Amino acid sequence: MAKALVVLSGGQDSTTCLYWAINEFGRENVSCISFDYGQRHKIELQAAEKVAEIAAVAHEILPINTFAALGGNALTDDIEVKQDVDQQTQLPNTFVPGRNLIFLTFAAAYAYGRNIEHLITGVAQTDYSGYPDCRENTLSALEQTLRLGMAYNITIHTPLMNLSKADTVELAERLGAMDAMAWTHTCYNGQQPPCGKCSACILRARGFAEARRRDPLIERFQFFEE
Amino acid sequence: MAKALVVLSGGQDSTTCLYWAINEFGRENVSCISFDYGQRHKIELQAAEKVAEIAAVAHEILPINTFAALGGNALTDDIEVKQDVDQQTQLPNTFVPGRNLIFLTFAAAYAYGRNIEHLITGVAQTDYSGYPDCRENTLSALEQTLRLGMAYNITIHTPLMNLSKADTVELAERLGAMDAMAWTHTCYNGQQPPCGKCSACILRARGFAEARRRDPLIERFQFFEE
Repeated sequence: MAKALVVLSGGQDSTTCLYWAINEFGRENVSCISFDYGQRHKIELQAAEKVAEIAAVAHEILPINTFAALGGNALTDDIEVKQDVDQQTQLPNTFVPGRNLIFLTFAAAYAYGRNIEHLITGVAQTDYSGYPDCRENTLSALEQTLRLGMAYNITIHTPLMNLSKADTVELAERLGAMDAMAWTHTCYNGQQPPCGKCSACILRARGFAEARRRDPLIERFQFFEE
Repeated sequence: MAKALVVLSGGQDSTTCLYWAINEFGRENVSCISFDYGQRHKIELQAAEKVAEIAAVAHEILPINTFAALGGNALTDDIEVKQDVDQQTQLPNTFVPGRNLIFLTFAAAYAYGRNIEHLITGVAQTDYSGYPDCRENTLSALEQTLRLGMAYNITIHTPLMNLSKADTVELAERLGAMDAMAWTHTCYNGQQPPCGKCSACILRARGFAEARRRDPLIERFQFFEE
């Protein structure tokens, strides 16, 4: 049976993808990988660990110290996350150029040594952010690059590529991902319970609202507050 | 005038490329970047610094701690460099899967923030090693991936792609790179003076012999020995 590797950020989308992969390839063939790339909020990595534990799949964290050395963005540096896009690039200041390309290339290098031929990533071009490295044409070009550059028959799966956030919520529910979903992390401000005000929190809340589901992450904190 | 960034390993090929870029874009528009990726021989980075100094261009070293964490190859680990290819992959055990893809993607991310639209790399598909990430089709696919993934009009130049080692020696001489060439590093065993026995040393020697030139690196040590 084919083996699959999920790039797990600890967020809602990659967690849904993990359950998609388990459904597709069988739990025993799925492992996941996260990157400690200098993100401001290490809570993401704790979330990824907890999700992998709940899903009962192997999980490894790889370090990348290069983005922090490159500097200049709000995800790794102490720069305030802005809601607006930059006028020149039309991108939010959370854009780390090449981030997904690097993640998937390292994931492929990891897969190469372990006889894993399927990579799964939670990118979605329907995502509000407009990150160009989340688009289908970029991912197709990258898949081709990895196949050529490693002489290895790797396939990149993007199960959420064309789904709305509400669709993703429904998919997560169908795949039985809601127990893990309670432990995912989304908030750009690194808060737990989530701040509810940043663009990431708002997008998540909108998806659950449109799918007419309660967010198990929010419920988990409400339970403790009562 | 357009700005250019050379990926400088400190070896013969990337040093030739640096002088190619200076000739093409003008010294004031050229800078170079090296990666401290856990290579066994830090002497490569010292060579890169010295070459950039002689060429009088800006030079920066970026760290990448991920390859060492991935493990399993003779360039970052304490594994003996083998002359033969692996029977299964038909690649030497110095192959680090995805290495050039990662280098060029980080170089592009660095270029993105600095308004640099030209990347230069010394890869050559005529190279004996057969690394698939040095081939023209891989580099074309990567260029396309970077353009799409960063929404940025980057061009990858590979001036040595179809040159023999002898051609590269002649090009280096024509471009005035021989002063810098005396300080480059090639030996897989990290020796200085070079061991003369590893596949990298042998390939270099063969190129100089075929071009009927003396290697200024060898001459530098003979001078001291006399």
